[in-house]
Amino acid sequence: MLSCRLARQAGRHSPGLRPPTIARQFGQTPTRSLFTKPSVTSPTTQTRGNAPRRHSKALALGPFFTRQLSGSPLPQSRSRFLNFLYRTAAIFGTSIAVVGVGVVGFFLYDASTYKTDAAHTDIAIPQLALNPRRGGPKNLPILEVSIDDNDTEEMLRQKDKPKLVILGSGWGSVALLKELNPENYHVTVVSPTNYFLFTPMLPSATVGTLEMKSLVEPIRRIILGVRGHFVQASAEDVDFSARLVEVSQTNSRGEEDRFYIPYDKLVIGVGSVTNPHGVKGLEHCYFLKDINDARRIRNKVIRNLELSCLPTTSDEERKRLLSFVVCGGGPTGVEFAAELFDLLNEDLTEVFPRLLRNEISVHLIQSRGHILNTYDETLSKYAEERFARDQVNVNTNARVGEVKEESILFTQKSPDGTIVTKELPMGFCLWSTGVSQTPFCQRLSAKLGDAQPNVHALETDTHLRLNGAPLGDVYAVGDCSTVQNNIADHIVTFLRVLAWKHGKDPESLELRFSDWRDVAASVRQRFPQAVGHLRRLDKLFHEYDADQSGTLDFGELRELLKQIDSKLTSLPATAQRANQQGQYLAQKFNKLARAAEGLRANDIIEGDLDAAVYKAFEYRHLGSLAYVGNSAVLDFGQGWKFAGGLWAVYAWRSIYFAQSVSLRTRMLMAMDWAKRSLFGRDLMSY
Amino acid sequence: MLSCRLARQAGRHSPGLRPPTIARQFGQTPTRSLFTKPSVTSPTTQTRGNAPRRHSKALALGPFFTRQLSGSPLPQSRSRFLNFLYRTAAIFGTSIAVVGVGVVGFFLYDASTYKTDAAHTDIAIPQLALNPRRGGPKNLPILEVSIDDNDTEEMLRQKDKPKLVILGSGWGSVALLKELNPENYHVTVVSPTNYFLFTPMLPSATVGTLEMKSLVEPIRRIILGVRGHFVQASAEDVDFSARLVEVSQTNSRGEEDRFYIPYDKLVIGVGSVTNPHGVKGLEHCYFLKDINDARRIRNKVIRNLELSCLPTTSDEERKRLLSFVVCGGGPTGVEFAAELFDLLNEDLTEVFPRLLRNEISVHLIQSRGHILNTYDETLSKYAEERFARDQVNVNTNARVGEVKEESILFTQKSPDGTIVTKELPMGFCLWSTGVSQTPFCQRLSAKLGDAQPNVHALETDTHLRLNGAPLGDVYAVGDCSTVQNNIADHIVTFLRVLAWKHGKDPESLELRFSDWRDVAASVRQRFPQAVGHLRRLDKLFHEYDADQSGTLDFGELRELLKQIDSKLTSLPATAQRANQQGQYLAQKFNKLARAAEGLRANDIIEGDLDAAVYKAFEYRHLGSLAYVGNSAVLDFGQGWKFAGGLWAVYAWRSIYFAQSVSLRTRMLMAMDWAKRSLFGRDLMSY
Repeated sequence: MLSCRLARQAGRHSPGLRPPTIARQFGQTPTRSLFTKPSVTSPTTQTRGNAPRRHSKALALGPFFTRQLSGSPLPQSRSRFLNFLYRTAAIFGTSIAVVGVGVVGFFLYDASTYKTDAAHTDIAIPQLALNPRRGGPKNLPILEVSIDDNDTEEMLRQKDKPKLVILGSGWGSVALLKELNPENYHVTVVSPTNYFLFTPMLPSATVGTLEMKSLVEPIRRIILGVRGHFVQASAEDVDFSARLVEVSQTNSRGEEDRFYIPYDKLVIGVGSVTNPHGVKGLEHCYFLKDINDARRIRNKVIRNLELSCLPTTSDEERKRLLSFVVCGGGPTGVEFAAELFDLLNEDLTEVFPRLLRNEISVHLIQSRGHILNTYDETLSKYAEERFARDQVNVNTNARVGEVKEESILFTQKSPDGTIVTKELPMGFCLWSTGVSQTPFCQRLSAKLGDAQPNVHALETDTHLRLNGAPLGDVYAVGDCSTVQNNIADHIVTFLRVLAWKHGKDPESLELRFSDWRDVAASVRQRFPQAVGHLRRLDKLFHEYDADQSGTLDFGELRELLKQIDSKLTSLPATAQRANQQGQYLAQKFNKLARAAEGLRANDIIEGDLDAAVYKAFEYRHLGSLAYVGNSAVLDFGQGWKFAGGLWAVYAWRSIYFAQSVSLRTRMLMAMDWAKRSLFGRDLMSY
Repeated sequence: MLSCRLARQAGRHSPGLRPPTIARQFGQTPTRSLFTKPSVTSPTTQTRGNAPRRHSKALALGPFFTRQLSGSPLPQSRSRFLNFLYRTAAIFGTSIAVVGVGVVGFFLYDASTYKTDAAHTDIAIPQLALNPRRGGPKNLPILEVSIDDNDTEEMLRQKDKPKLVILGSGWGSVALLKELNPENYHVTVVSPTNYFLFTPMLPSATVGTLEMKSLVEPIRRIILGVRGHFVQASAEDVDFSARLVEVSQTNSRGEEDRFYIPYDKLVIGVGSVTNPHGVKGLEHCYFLKDINDARRIRNKVIRNLELSCLPTTSDEERKRLLSFVVCGGGPTGVEFAAELFDLLNEDLTEVFPRLLRNEISVHLIQSRGHILNTYDETLSKYAEERFARDQVNVNTNARVGEVKEESILFTQKSPDGTIVTKELPMGFCLWSTGVSQTPFCQRLSAKLGDAQPNVHALETDTHLRLNGAPLGDVYAVGDCSTVQNNIADHIVTFLRVLAWKHGKDPESLELRFSDWRDVAASVRQRFPQAVGHLRRLDKLFHEYDADQSGTLDFGELRELLKQIDSKLTSLPATAQRANQQGQYLAQKFNKLARAAEGLRANDIIEGDLDAAVYKAFEYRHLGSLAYVGNSAVLDFGQGWKFAGGLWAVYAWRSIYFAQSVSLRTRMLMAMDWAKRSLFGRDLMSY
């Protein structure tokens, strides 16, 4: 019926083409024929008289969707208004139909994801996996064969590949796992936690802007990509000569079990612990390193709010409970203060007594002169202004002396140079003041002696190989490690060249500021990652110019270089660095595996294989971001910096969204942001 | 350009109408005119030669969306294929555009939800709220004025209304809060948890099918609806004469603070605790009452799986760790076993070694003859068959004797009547075997003495008023309470009427089964909730017919009624019952408030006001549901029962989806189900 109507209407415009069969179907015989009696006006006027009424009736009945796709011409009404109505309805109808088809499709897909058959298949488990051989210096069980080594054909092929053991499940390890070619190594990941945590967004999880689930990804799912194995245990020690990692795990009876995991290549990515900076009373502080910390913080914040509502809480006590203190003005501390402020400002007043909002105070204690001091100065000032407007109390140049149960003691240098001691009552204190070595790393450091002089992290060469360990066996990535860049050495070389150019003895060299700029330019070219430090050296130049001569002599220079040397070698303890190091190692390991055949053929099994197949690691700073309370600062280095309101927040989110580990976490994040905007944050503690 | 092209095309079909200006615009003059030289074929053939090419060019360039809505006629191509392509593109383009508009709209909405101004407004806090008066039998602070009583105009109006205090934040309390007219009472909710938990779905949260967040709703948000107040504290005691509730809360120093909350009406909905049934070693068991239990269970299950992968775990130990035992064959136990099986069957094999799947066992221990014994027999058999197929080991007629650290001891009656003692090694044990009174309820029960003879719950009359407390002051709802229905009394009355009809002395009445059916029919009509019990009475009829006479005499009947009396008075401890009781109270309180004026005018302030304004509470059983592992059983009573696979699961979900507490939880649930199907369950412990 549909196509008939359409054909009839087309025929209306060119009556000579109308097939008589169709006309008959409508019980209508052509009254005049153009073939017999040519006429100009009558064919159009005659048909036009009936058309609109019939058409509008058909409009209400006709299944538009079928016709939309049918390919036959559409009905043409003379009324623009009717046409407009019809098409608007068609557009929305179509959209709803498409969404409907999507929903039905999803249900069909969903129905296919339920497994109903309990598949018990017999599998052969190697005897050595069930009863591992004991050995090593402590005669512990050795994990030579895994119970899932025979699980699939692919895993079986992996069995005799070189054993790559990765300690930790953070950014470095995951970047390595994602880039590694699954064909080349038998991979085992050892970590006390069985998930990867998207650390940069952790402050958002403390107040429920994001769900904790959205920031974590099961490490076992990531390992699937390289057909690897996972052992939930903590690394305790490494026997470098026997190539064994000693790991421990508490069994179901509460006793500690230890065993060895053998490796051909070992990657240490165990991260760091919070730096106590020797301050007393840190047991009264909260930390923000993992997902349980986020939950503990959220529960504590909500609990303080609830306690503040009780009639047994005095007004003074209420003010104390509602005094939230953050120690540390780095990105974590700043973002937590911002998120906390958002929670208190956006969600608290809606459901809690208004008195609480008036008595709440958020304090930030920073030892340096500015918060976000590693960022560009304009950004750090922007953040400070933002906080000042938001009534977040920022204390700069302040050093925490002691944390008591209900207050925090700190000394602050006032602008005139006098140092005053202050006591701040507090109901909650977050301690986020940099990182320190884990006990495991301290143990390795001590074991390797002089090769590891750094007390803050494990030192590696520029190929990320652990200094002191057998060459090419052990690597370290992420917060637990630091790369010896030897930039200071290079600067001295540059200076010697400069002295030679000036025809002078280096010891008697007088360096003018313009000379220094030349040196800095050359160094910058060769070590792009030194840019930030060189910029700071400009400022130091004047400071170290002890005799105010406008020049530096070599003695002053050596002093300056000694002072900056430690700073130059320590890359920032960020997710970005760990990620780049993990990717670097994966690329190198892939190359090493490909080159292995050729090297073996040429009897090259010892020596600097890493340097032979791949370039040294070079850190490229892609930028720093921070959320500062309905606004964000973005510092991409080299003068590319932005600070702003909501658009910057959306940019900040977009960047993390793109960097997120999996489709799953991305979808969850997007849902969380939508949830916050629709329903607010959840003010519940459990 | 667009409208020109369209007009031109319309003109093509009826050339006589084409205005010459448009034709000129296209640099084309009409070659022949119908006005001067009539022709049949040439006008159409001539234009047709060029049309398709020009049209397809316009198709690529034309902004279809504008035209779709423009109201002017659409282009007509003679090629059905082109038309089809064009319209398919238009449909999907339109859908994408509509979605795009939606996304942009959402972002605009989202941007409007960020508050940038920190609103500090001065508010007057009543002195009595900051420094509450002390008093009552223990001279504790009394919460007479809340710190948020003056927060808004609306709250200010509420201040002098009768004080309604609600203990607990479960189903009964929330149903009451949602139905209560906000104008009538000054509402205070007291609960140790600041959220409402959607308990029927709790088993799903233990394995990550649903997120915990999706099952909870902040109680403060629910209270907003009645402009009420929330106190996070535990009820300790009630002084019925002074109308004071004594509550306790641990302050930030870890000390217990106590205070009084005065009430005009008190609703007790504090729920229940798990029934230990006097079994030793329950400290080795897990329970499933609140959201933290769900998290603990999930972490324990995942931890056992991880421990099973370690080389230090012996094969025997692995089998023990992977032996999951559920004590209790009610809906909670059954659904947990089903969810656990789903997790192990659907998600475990993907990421854990296959050996684990082969060594896992799930056991269910049920003291009765069948699992789900309160459900229709065919459903309970269906569930058992389902479990048998899924290799969930169901032990019926089994009674747990003791739970040890690594095993569970139980006695089981075999079909031949002999009792055997069995020991089952276990790595995890869930205890879900019914409910018991909280210490608070025990205290009230003891205080009210003879008025409260029931050791399992607080007894109320049919108006839900706590027996023994001053009439109209105190109500009890939910698991903590039981309603005296006195149905047994009514049956005796019926029997007396029957005896009178037969013209006999009741004491010498001989009741035949057919007579009994008549009585049952009458009782069923008057007490719809007795249906289930009456059906069971049919079965008991034969049992109690001690002399096998085919009839019961009055003595036997009295014996039978005594035995069933306790059963009749205890309504099921379900969310459904609590919900209905909460709604009932809300409706009654609304009526009482409306009637208050009139009653006061008539000097009626004492007496049975409840009965005067509203009917007695009547429980209507809407049905029981249970998920049994990719299938569900639905028992709506009166023979309406269903059991089946996925369609039943979807029905089961739909029912809970509809009953869910808020739009927020509904959206989250839907997202969770989609998440499970897209990404599986999260096998992480933290």
